[in-house]
Amino acid sequence: MTGREPTQSEIGAMRDLVARAHEASAEAGKSGIAAGLMAGDTLLDAGTNHVHLEDDPTRHAEIVAIGRAAKDRGSPDLSGLTLLSTLQPCEMCLAAARFAGISRIVFAARQENVPEKYFAFPHLRMPDLLNGQDEVEVIGGVLEDEVIDLYRDGQE
Amino acid sequence: MTGREPTQSEIGAMRDLVARAHEASAEAGKSGIAAGLMAGDTLLDAGTNHVHLEDDPTRHAEIVAIGRAAKDRGSPDLSGLTLLSTLQPCEMCLAAARFAGISRIVFAARQENVPEKYFAFPHLRMPDLLNGQDEVEVIGGVLEDEVIDLYRDGQE
Repeated sequence: MTGREPTQSEIGAMRDLVARAHEASAEAGKSGIAAGLMAGDTLLDAGTNHVHLEDDPTRHAEIVAIGRAAKDRGSPDLSGLTLLSTLQPCEMCLAAARFAGISRIVFAARQENVPEKYFAFPHLRMPDLLNGQDEVEVIGGVLEDEVIDLYRDGQE
Repeated sequence: MTGREPTQSEIGAMRDLVARAHEASAEAGKSGIAAGLMAGDTLLDAGTNHVHLEDDPTRHAEIVAIGRAAKDRGSPDLSGLTLLSTLQPCEMCLAAARFAGISRIVFAARQENVPEKYFAFPHLRMPDLLNGQDEVEVIGGVLEDEVIDLYRDGQE
């Protein structure tokens, strides 16, 4: 894991996701979490949290976005793409990203600044999970101030 | 976590899932992994791995089964149900189960007897993930001998 800086394209894509998160938060039954995949400088399919929309606890924004990108690519292998999310990916979504071969992850709100309930195994942090996977680049806190209020109460 | 014994109903349901796993393995593009939810003594929706069927790396058998059960129940909360799988749930699926409130998990093939590639963070084992969640009951190795050959080469 590295603490490298986000690219200008990633900051721009995150700005798009932040807007989607705020829109989703304003709609009934939708949480304010948005995620998307980038190929190079381009934001591909984005998704928002569908847990309550679909009555399905597995439909986190990242799961929705990864599924869409994989279907578009016609392959479950998303190597080379970057995962962006307005909230640090939970253990489910991080594992999904790694199974898909994703090795760059950029997010806004960081685990230490949001309620524990967004995580299934909150005693473990991302470095504990990714221990030994030095090829994975993780950049947290990008535009964090613009979304952190959405996650104050742990609502999904 | 406990090492309690499976119930007779759970063994019967696992026998059903083992049969589904072998059927799925025999069909092109499908892996031989099956999972399902039980309510009391009844096996509810079962699912098989759809990663290659749907070109979606998130569609593990447990994710499919949890999604179906939650839609049927009309709620992402599956508290009180038991998750069964022919293969020890990976980190993605275990996190999904915990988000859904599932606190009893029964499986056949155990992590230590299958290739690492079935797991995203193989340096961590289930007790590492569930550390401190003493309410979760986990029973592995149920009918393991009847499926272990399906998972020898790490095929999904």
